[in-house]
Amino acid sequence: MNERIYTAGLVVIGDEILSGRTHDKNIAQVASWLQVQGIRLSEVRVVPDTIERIAEAVNALRKSYDYLFTTGGIGPTHDDITVDAVAAALEVPVIVHPEARAILERYYADKPGGLTDARLRMARVPEGAALIANRMSGAPGIKLGNIHLMAGVPHITAGMLDALTGTLEGGAPLLAETVGCWTPESEVADILREVEKAHVNCQIGSYPFFRDGKVGANFVIRSTEKDDLESCMHSLCDGLGTAGFDFTPGGI
Amino acid sequence: MNERIYTAGLVVIGDEILSGRTHDKNIAQVASWLQVQGIRLSEVRVVPDTIERIAEAVNALRKSYDYLFTTGGIGPTHDDITVDAVAAALEVPVIVHPEARAILERYYADKPGGLTDARLRMARVPEGAALIANRMSGAPGIKLGNIHLMAGVPHITAGMLDALTGTLEGGAPLLAETVGCWTPESEVADILREVEKAHVNCQIGSYPFFRDGKVGANFVIRSTEKDDLESCMHSLCDGLGTAGFDFTPGGI
Repeated sequence: MNERIYTAGLVVIGDEILSGRTHDKNIAQVASWLQVQGIRLSEVRVVPDTIERIAEAVNALRKSYDYLFTTGGIGPTHDDITVDAVAAALEVPVIVHPEARAILERYYADKPGGLTDARLRMARVPEGAALIANRMSGAPGIKLGNIHLMAGVPHITAGMLDALTGTLEGGAPLLAETVGCWTPESEVADILREVEKAHVNCQIGSYPFFRDGKVGANFVIRSTEKDDLESCMHSLCDGLGTAGFDFTPGGI
Repeated sequence: MNERIYTAGLVVIGDEILSGRTHDKNIAQVASWLQVQGIRLSEVRVVPDTIERIAEAVNALRKSYDYLFTTGGIGPTHDDITVDAVAAALEVPVIVHPEARAILERYYADKPGGLTDARLRMARVPEGAALIANRMSGAPGIKLGNIHLMAGVPHITAGMLDALTGTLEGGAPLLAETVGCWTPESEVADILREVEKAHVNCQIGSYPFFRDGKVGANFVIRSTEKDDLESCMHSLCDGLGTAGFDFTPGGI
């Protein structure tokens, strides 16, 4: 088993997220996809649509983690500046990628207006970059070193993640088991703490909720070791049962 | 009119967000609330549940922006370490706040188990802190200097934001108008760029979508100046109409 832990950072480029107008869907989408690749999302930064702020976040995160992903700002309009920001961060020029240009020429050949200057913006990449396929809307994502620039529209992001599936080296995927309880988490805090302490390869998170007028919590055990995870799961269920709590394996 | 721009950073404390298990709702909620207070959300960081990583993000953002907010990690369980992390960041000790203790004693007086040690954790604050009222579940939020520690469960966060409404100094709220078009944004990129250039106090964001099998985009104009916003809105509608596009003021 590969013991190394692979990590990733995500930069969400988005005035529309910071204004509260758009609810981000890409954090959860990228996070879930990374889990399956055996890569842990370790940090997310949401930054405004300015070259300096994007470049600063890109430089901080590309150096801190094995992989960096960005979502947003690679479209055809004046506010799409991610390519320029990443080129600035890496101190490389922006060029028109011949293959991206060819893809866009084919895509827009039968569409009104054809390949306009605005659309040709989507063929611009930081020098040295490769493309990430986009089956949904022609304009490709961009890969350069450990950096992956993806679209902001969630279903297009999904297509680009799909194109990257299996291409990134990862470690053992983080496994998880959930136990739910219609109980205020404060009543089981001691049990959670003791069970976690007894299982060094496992972390237990407690996620309270309020639903149907009642409080409850889901306890999520995470580990890269299947046997340790199961042993921890059994200990937690034993502890909850012995103390008289009604629990639901699988979560509520 | 107050010309100063007030800014805020948000640290979302969250293993559950980084694992993709939970879809964050607090970014949009805090962002929308800040808009109304005349404060701009300028950066969000999502970090894991470790003291070092929380403290690092708190120190970076509290110094960069007028206000700092955090969500998550102030509950009663072992994984609730935000108070310890903020105390570490500020290099102050953690104390039990007498008023918080009194609130919890009253809240748990008639509940099974009463005020246990686990529940008493929720009265711990970095020394010097004041409380933010929590009508939903007793345990208060925490305010210290420009830092505001809030719950992670969205409806409890909402109650704490409500308690803070009108208490923070802000500037002119950022106003917005939206125009929608069932048009690929690439077809109107030139119009957007020219209209924005002609209205220096306004920014135009273009947010493409795919719905009912068709592509479209909403164009959001933002400004703190009502007159400039309206003038920019008229110019954009004129530009779209003259070029033959069918547009929808108010957005799609």
